Formats: sequence, structure tokens, C-alpha cells
Amino acid sequence: MEILKKIKSPDDLQNLNNFEDLASEIRDKIIEVVSCNGGHLASNLGVVELTIAILKVFGGIENNIIWDVGHQCYAYKMLTGRFSNIDSLRKNCGLSGFSCRGESQYDHFTTGHSSNSISVALGIARSKKILRQYGKAIAIIGDGAMTGGLAFEGLNNAGKSDENLLVILNDNDMSISKNVGAIAKYFNHIRTQPIYLNTKRAAKEILYRNSTLGKKLKYFLSKLKILIKSAVIHESTIFENLGFAYYGPINGHNVSELINVFSVIKDMPKPILVHVITKKGSGYEFAEKNPDIFHAVTKFNIKTGEITASEKNFSKVFGETIVEIAKQNSKIFAITAAMPDGVGLSKFSKIFPDRFVDVGIAEAHATTFAAGLAIGGILPVFSVYSSFLQRAFDQIIHDVAMQRIKVIFSVDRSGLVGSDGESHQGIFDVPFLCTIPGIEIYSPSYFFELEHVLKESINSQNSTVIRYPKGAEFFKPNWLNQNFCDFDIYIQNKDNLIITYGRIFSFSAQILDKFPNKISIMKLNKISPLSQEAIENAIKFKNIFFFEESIKSGGIGEKFGFELLKLGFSGHFVLTALDDFIKNCEVEEQLEFFSLDFKGMINKIGL
Amino acid sequence: MEILKKIKSPDDLQNLNNFEDLASEIRDKIIEVVSCNGGHLASNLGVVELTIAILKVFGGIENNIIWDVGHQCYAYKMLTGRFSNIDSLRKNCGLSGFSCRGESQYDHFTTGHSSNSISVALGIARSKKILRQYGKAIAIIGDGAMTGGLAFEGLNNAGKSDENLLVILNDNDMSISKNVGAIAKYFNHIRTQPIYLNTKRAAKEILYRNSTLGKKLKYFLSKLKILIKSAVIHESTIFENLGFAYYGPINGHNVSELINVFSVIKDMPKPILVHVITKKGSGYEFAEKNPDIFHAVTKFNIKTGEITASEKNFSKVFGETIVEIAKQNSKIFAITAAMPDGVGLSKFSKIFPDRFVDVGIAEAHATTFAAGLAIGGILPVFSVYSSFLQRAFDQIIHDVAMQRIKVIFSVDRSGLVGSDGESHQGIFDVPFLCTIPGIEIYSPSYFFELEHVLKESINSQNSTVIRYPKGAEFFKPNWLNQNFCDFDIYIQNKDNLIITYGRIFSFSAQILDKFPNKISIMKLNKISPLSQEAIENAIKFKNIFFFEESIKSGGIGEKFGFELLKLGFSGHFVLTALDDFIKNCEVEEQLEFFSLDFKGMINKIGL
Repeated sequence: MEILKKIKSPDDLQNLNNFEDLASEIRDKIIEVVSCNGGHLASNLGVVELTIAILKVFGGIENNIIWDVGHQCYAYKMLTGRFSNIDSLRKNCGLSGFSCRGESQYDHFTTGHSSNSISVALGIARSKKILRQYGKAIAIIGDGAMTGGLAFEGLNNAGKSDENLLVILNDNDMSISKNVGAIAKYFNHIRTQPIYLNTKRAAKEILYRNSTLGKKLKYFLSKLKILIKSAVIHESTIFENLGFAYYGPINGHNVSELINVFSVIKDMPKPILVHVITKKGSGYEFAEKNPDIFHAVTKFNIKTGEITASEKNFSKVFGETIVEIAKQNSKIFAITAAMPDGVGLSKFSKIFPDRFVDVGIAEAHATTFAAGLAIGGILPVFSVYSSFLQRAFDQIIHDVAMQRIKVIFSVDRSGLVGSDGESHQGIFDVPFLCTIPGIEIYSPSYFFELEHVLKESINSQNSTVIRYPKGAEFFKPNWLNQNFCDFDIYIQNKDNLIITYGRIFSFSAQILDKFPNKISIMKLNKISPLSQEAIENAIKFKNIFFFEESIKSGGIGEKFGFELLKLGFSGHFVLTALDDFIKNCEVEEQLEFFSLDFKGMINKIGL
Repeated sequence: MEILKKIKSPDDLQNLNNFEDLASEIRDKIIEVVSCNGGHLASNLGVVELTIAILKVFGGIENNIIWDVGHQCYAYKMLTGRFSNIDSLRKNCGLSGFSCRGESQYDHFTTGHSSNSISVALGIARSKKILRQYGKAIAIIGDGAMTGGLAFEGLNNAGKSDENLLVILNDNDMSISKNVGAIAKYFNHIRTQPIYLNTKRAAKEILYRNSTLGKKLKYFLSKLKILIKSAVIHESTIFENLGFAYYGPINGHNVSELINVFSVIKDMPKPILVHVITKKGSGYEFAEKNPDIFHAVTKFNIKTGEITASEKNFSKVFGETIVEIAKQNSKIFAITAAMPDGVGLSKFSKIFPDRFVDVGIAEAHATTFAAGLAIGGILPVFSVYSSFLQRAFDQIIHDVAMQRIKVIFSVDRSGLVGSDGESHQGIFDVPFLCTIPGIEIYSPSYFFELEHVLKESINSQNSTVIRYPKGAEFFKPNWLNQNFCDFDIYIQNKDNLIITYGRIFSFSAQILDKFPNKISIMKLNKISPLSQEAIENAIKFKNIFFFEESIKSGGIGEKFGFELLKLGFSGHFVLTALDDFIKNCEVEEQLEFFSLDFKGMINKIGL
């Protein structure tokens, strides 16, 4: 890491010419860190050269660089003064796995969710114009993120503007899984055209420079000669139709070529799109071959490419169960938004290709498409991460609930998700789904409960949400009720009642085992609408301790407390839940932080 | 209405040939009904011929016709068996002003929000394929709705499918206001091309039909002759790039031409886009000249085109105040999503064209763009209808709250909005905004309060929501506190306390006037986070009656009750709020239905 060590800021790239060695060092470091800490591998390996070129040309702090999604920022972090700290990536108090405001002056936006970078960059470009500040706003967005509607809204608004905006389309023919949709097919079409720059455009640019920056003409002519490998008159691209000047496609692993193109456009204050072709996982054999698997990984062995096998988890159980159900019921249709592996639908997609679709990063469409299927007599199951479902809030209200139709939402990664950072925590699904009339919400704590409720939900008339956490189940007591009723109550003490739901029930079970006869437990399984019987059972207790792995405002604890109030409860009610965003660290650390683990619960109860 | 009277279903169109007279009758009826009941005028006048042609060719119930937004369905309702009932449009127990499931077998989807029709139709088309049902799914979508990201997600997924799907692009160069963005410019480009059908495509279609439906060849050749007025080799359209077969542009006021095109494509089971050019307000001089003003109207005089002047309302007050503020503060920037008139920003847009943008129907982009502006040092104000802000839920969480930046959301049409139907009620903003950390929410009841809080909010560090209702202020008591504190309390009785916020405070004020010394009132102005002092004041009362013009689950009433419970309140707490969607009728009727008016409150309190 001889070269990397010396780079304290992008300025240090100016006198550097050996980019191959630098790229190689960066790759080695990325592989090393991710193999230990887990993280996003393939996407980071894919943008090493692109990152170097961007920072070489646009590294000045007057330029605002926005990485869409932001999980591909490891090289960027290393080259913007954070190399010495890169081993702390994704750890408690360490560097975030995403771009993160506050972590560095070079991180202009905290990212995590896809498809917003063009809109952000456009806003920044517009503010620069109003405030008469120098510099370019730059959005780097993958072809996968381009399938999200927000990206299109951004393009549509940016293209007609005359802002000083550069969009770099990082086209690796993948979002997380193999990219889908017409736009992907279209990108593939233009990707394979033998053009680098349009002749007409090239001529125009030369004239442009000639008139305004005449003395640089010769310099640029030499650069253009490299660029114009082959120039043909070509059809307008979608981007040109939307008002962008289009340059590409360009080899995203050739630093010199990238630097040349960026240098040409650097001082053109207008909306420009540069189409760059990269290879996910580039430079690490195992990741090149299996970019899906190496998209986001836990620890792995660098030499063998062997990934620490993940234990049985809720996603897998969902995947197995939905296949089983679909074998019996020909109306089941499964939908994912760019996450077939993540949500456990790979097997389903192979067995039932005609009853499965990956819509791309398009949760709103996924929901409304599901509504269309339901209208047509099909039973759609949309499986999605909790934090991404936020993007379909209006569609759940308008296209599902208001229609009084049946759609099943299997909501994965509900609750805290650990190292993935602020944006990926599944902490809002309970309040935002609870508020929508006519939707039933279940929160299984164990695999068998997920299996049970998924099978049962097929028969209900209402739209159903089944939410479950990332990873494996926690401690399961042997006295657990094996029927999945709306709620269970385990009475050992007539004064003190713990109420909870989801996986953190496990801690209350441990408390019951450790302090027999000191507490009783109510385990909620159906969390909305609340069971009246559960409330009537709870009101008999003097002290109620409600623990909730969700944001507090609008959650179940508030509602439960409110129902008790209505019935005249005058005992002690303590609600422990989340009240803010949370930074990246392990799930165990997050639960501890919010007093939602064994110790925290004991303290809250005062045992 | 001789012809209209006889049309009991689309079947009755089959033997009809005089479409001009029918169109004329429909127009007269639309103008008559809207002049009395209010409603959407210009958009309905624009699609009269299009509706006739669609129903003539696709009127069989096996086809699923989805009108995007659905406010342009008046002709459709008249021709699908609802002519005899059309005078009840938008009235209590009358026909909805939108497409409405349950109202007719021809309304396949309850609509209201924009840009979802392609996704719905694709879902229906897919379900037909799985269930082996005959028929085409048809989405009719305006060029304005095409600016919404969901429409793009739908196109992207539909284009690569091989479903039996027809998208009719109803291009009137307007959404609600003049259409904006690059896509609008692009539509204008293809709109002016002298092409009707591509020669290559036409030839291919003939061959296609020849092989599969040989005997119809002659018939179709004659039709194609009409269609191919001029055929040139043209650039691929965006739609062709996205996988659609593209036909157009076609004159949307020529029934025969429309019928010819639809007949040609009727039996082609693949994704097709027909681009139709219509004129908003067509056939009514005043609406043609001012389609903005006649987009959605209250009563008007048919002969003079004079619209019943709207009284002073919250939107106007917002519009005046924000202009006043922007004159003092050069960093203020105002954003609307296709509603400059509706939200009161027309004046602002004229005085400060460089600090204003209409982003089209793109609330998600509006929010994220605002975030970019804020990052760049500008103070953005996004003014938007409550129910449309639902589409930006994730962006408010991720791109605003998580960034800890300052954006002001002025949320118009909060609460019940009357005749506009289920989809437009602003009943979810309180719960979904409350749940997001770091956002302050204010709910002024009166014009001066809106003015005050808008001016004050500029100085606060936090992102702020200011929500206010549609229309005018209600009764204002002369004893009202003229300072806008976080809450006001008017004590006349030590037992009974009404707590409320927003415009329905007026009813509680009337109760206080009518029953002096029987009740006290707490008026909440800042509704989130709740003032601890307010809670400590309330706890002294025996009976608390909380009235809330919002959905109950996750609202302020629940939270207030919960806070009381935590402090050991053991009195009587009655929360009156909304617990379901509500159909179209007057605001007064809606408030009565939920016991949120003077009478309802009195009953709930037991006075």
C-alpha cells in the first residue's frame, strides 16, 4: 500500500501517473477489508478506476460528488483522506459502509437508498447557480438504480435545465441481481454500438472550445483523437431525447480514457451524461464470476472465495415456504424488486418462472403491479426489505388498501439490521403500515411461526403484512406455545407483565427462565389491528413493560397504551422503543443501545 | 340528449355511426353537470372522442380499461350505463368524480392518484395470461402523468414483457398546469413529426395479419391506407426503445381515425403504445382558452364562463405570505409538483422565476431536489397537497430527515377535502410525518396563524411541516389568543377539556360560546413533537375529549393519550377521529359523518 498511504486527499492524485499500481492497491485493500468486515464487494471492485478518474479531474472540494446508493464508495473513502481508517469500515464508531455526511467533507450526502442521486445533484447545481458558486454537481448512478422511477423524474427535470450537472451512468448490466426491464435491454443495445463520441458532437465541441478557450484547442484535439476511435452517425439515445449531451459508452476500467473524457467536459456548464461500462467484481476472480453472491457478503476466505456459510435464516424459510404453498396453489405469484436472492426467491423463480417477476429497483411499481394481478384474480406476494417498502407507501394506501383487494407483503429485514447503516434499518414499517385501514400485520418471532402465518394468510380476505427480521431466530424456549394465535400470554406473576413482539421476545423468555415467578409475558403475534382480548388480559396487571424493536411514534406500544387508557388502566406503563435513526454497528450493539436486549430489559423492569 | 339516452352500455355504440352528434351531446352534458356540481372540466372535454372510440372498439367487458388519475371519466361513465345518474356526480351517495370499483363493472380500478395505470394494466394483463382469459388491458395516461416516476417504472416493466397491453398516451401538452420537463419537450418534438405509422411497421403488420388472419387482409389494407397518410423512416421513439410498438401521433378528436387505429391493433397481443393528441377543454371556448382555470372548477356560468369566485383561502394566504418572505430572504426557493395554481404559487413563480420550479407530477423528486438545494445552502419550500405527499414518504425520511437538513413542507388540502373522492383526502399526513424523527409539525387553524408560523419557521433549524386545510377558515372567536404559541388553553371548567387542532377548533369555540363554564379547550398549534407542558396542563382534568381531523392510528390523539397514561392519568379519555377511507360528499357531510362538527362534538361530550 505504498501509493495509497501517501494519498491524504484528492490533490495528491495530481502528480501521480501510475494508476495501475494504485488501482491494484485499492483492490487488494477492498478485498482484505470486506473479507474481514463483510460489506459490498463486487460493486466496489467495479468502480476503482472510475473513482480514480473522477477524483483526478473533479477532486476539488468545489465539486459535489454524489454516489447513488453509496455502497460503492470504498475506493472513494480511501482516496479522500480515510485510508488510515478503512479497517473500521461498518464497525461500531467506524466508517460507514455508505457515503455519510459528517464523516468527511467529501461526502456531500448520506446515501443508502437507490435512484436519488440525480435529483440531489440537480438541487445542488441549482443552489450553486443561485449563490453564484463555482463547481460541478456530479451524480454517479448504476444502471440498476436507473430502473427506479425517481431516477427518471430526476433525468426529466435535469435534462431540460441548463445546470452544471454531470451524470455518470455506471453501467455494469447488474443492479444487485441481473438487471431487468426494457431500459436494461436498451442499455445493452447502445453498449454494443461501435461509437465513442458522435462526430457531429465532437466537431461542435472543438468549435465551442475554439471560440472560448482557443489556446487549449490543440491540447483537446489530441485528446479527442484518442476518444474518437470510431464515430458514426447514430440514433439519438434516450438521454439525448431527455435533453442531455451524451458521451459514451466508455471503458470504465481505462483510467486514461476516463480522464480524457472528463477533462473534455469539465468546463461545459450544462447537463451531460457519460455512459461508462464497468465490470462488477473486476479484478477478483470469484466476484467476477459470481457478482450476485459477492454483491453484499459476510466474511469470506480471500484465497478460496469461500464465504462463511450463512445459517438458516428467515429469508430462506420464507423462500422454502412460498415454494411449498405455490405448489398447492396455482394462483400464487411472487414479486421482488431487484432482490431475488436477498429475499429468498431464487428457488421460486426457477420452479415457477411464469409466476415470478423481478421488477428492478421499483417498489412502487411492484406494489401497483401486484394490485393489478389481484384485480385479475391472482394472489400476489411482494417480498421486500422493510426500509425499501417505504417507497411504496402511497401505492399501498391507494392501489391496495383503497381497492379492498388482497396482496401479501412479506417484509424482510424488519427491525434493526446492523452494519448496513442508517438507511437500511427496518424501523418504520410498523407505524406506516399500521396507519393504513384494512391491513393486517403479523410479526413472527420464529421460523415455524413465519411458515404458519404465511400459509394461513393465503386464506384471509384482507391484505396482509408479514414482517420478520434479518438473519436467524434468537433463543427459543421449550415452553413456547406451538400454535400461532393472535397473541400468547405466559402468566407467572400477577403484577409485572412484559409485552413484546418479534424476535426480541426471546430476551423476555430468557428473563422468565432466569427469574421464575417474577414476571409474566404477553407475546403479540398479530400486531395490527390489536386484539381486544389481549388488551383486556393486560389491564389486569399493575406494571406493564412494553418492548418494541421499531420506531416509537405510531408504533404498537403507543397504541396498546392508548387502548389501556381508554379502558381506565391506571397502572405503570413503560414503553421502550426506538426514537431516532441509528448509525452502523452490530445488531447486538444496536439492541443494547436501545435497551432492547436481555440486560436492557432487566434494567427497565428493575429486576 | 336523444342519442345518449339510448346508450345503456357500450354495446349500443356498435350500430351507431353519427359520432359527431353523440360527442356534441356528451360535451353539453359535461358542461351542464360540472357547471352545477363542480369538477374536472377541461380534461373531460378533451377525451370525448377518444372515449367513444375506445368503447366502440374495446367496449367488451373482457377488456380492462384503466383511466390514469381517473378524473377524465365523465364521458366514460355516461357511455357505460351511468348516464341516467350523471347529475349526481360528486354528490353524497352519487357517482364518484373518479373511476370507482363497485360503482360499475366497467370501472376496474378506483383511481385518483396519477401515474399508476400502466402498472395496474400490466398486472391485469399478466393475470389474464396466467388464467388464460381473453381480453386486453388498456391504460389511458396523460402526458402529465408520464412525468411521474411510477409511469416510467411501469413502461420499463411493460415494454420488455409480451403482455396483451395497450397504453394510450393522451397528449394534451398539459398535466394540470402547462406540462414541464424534458419528456414534455420530447413529446412536442414527436408530436410535430409528419408521420402516422412507420412504413416498415405497417408492412410488417400486414404480413403478420396475412399469416394469421389472412381473410381479414383486404379489410385491414383498406384501413391501413387511411392510416398511412405519410410514412417516413423516423428515429426510434423513447417508447420503441423501451420495447413498445409505437403508433402515432393521431388526432384525438377524429373518431373514425381513432377507431381505425384501434381496430388495427385490437388483436395484436403485445405491448403497444398509441400516441393521441387532444386539446384540453375542446369544444367549450372558455375552457380551451384557460385549461388551467377550467381544470378543476367550482360552479360556473355556462354562457359567460364566469366561475363562482372562490373566497379567501389558505392556499392564497400561503401564496401571499411566501412572496412577502422571499422579498426579504433571497435564499427562499419554492417548489410545486404540477400545482402552481392549486397551492397558490402562481404569483411567486412570476416574481421569482429563478427561485421557483414546477417539477411535474413528481413529488419524490421534488423532495429530493429540495434536499439538494438545502445541502447547497438554499432554503426550499415544497408546497404540496397532503395526499400527494404520501408519494414522497421515503424521500422525506431518507433525503431530508436523515440528512439533518432544513426543508419546509407547506402541506395544503390537509384533512377532509370533500367531493374529490377517497383518494384526495388529506388524512394520512399527520401519522406518517409524525413518525419521522426530527420533523416539526404545525397545524394552524386560521389565516393569520398560517402567516405567523410560515414566517417563524424560516428561523428554526429543523425541517418543518405546516399543514392547513382546503378552502376558507371556519368560525373565529373574538377571544382567540393572537399569539401563535405551541398550544393555547382556555379554561372555563375544571372537569371537561376538549383538545383539538386545525380548523375544527372552530366548533369547540362555538361550543364554548354556547355553553359557557361547561368546558375548557386546549388548542394545539404545534402538534409534533407534543409540548410536555400541554400534557401537564391536560392531566388536571377529569374528562378529556380529543377531536382530530385525521386518521386515528398513529395520530396526535393516540400520542396525547399515551403521554397522559405515562403520567398516570386515570380520567376519562375519548378520542374522536377517522378510522377509514371516506367516499365523496361535501366537507360538512364528512365532518358530520365522523362526529367532528359542532353537533357531533356536543354528542360526544354529552352536553
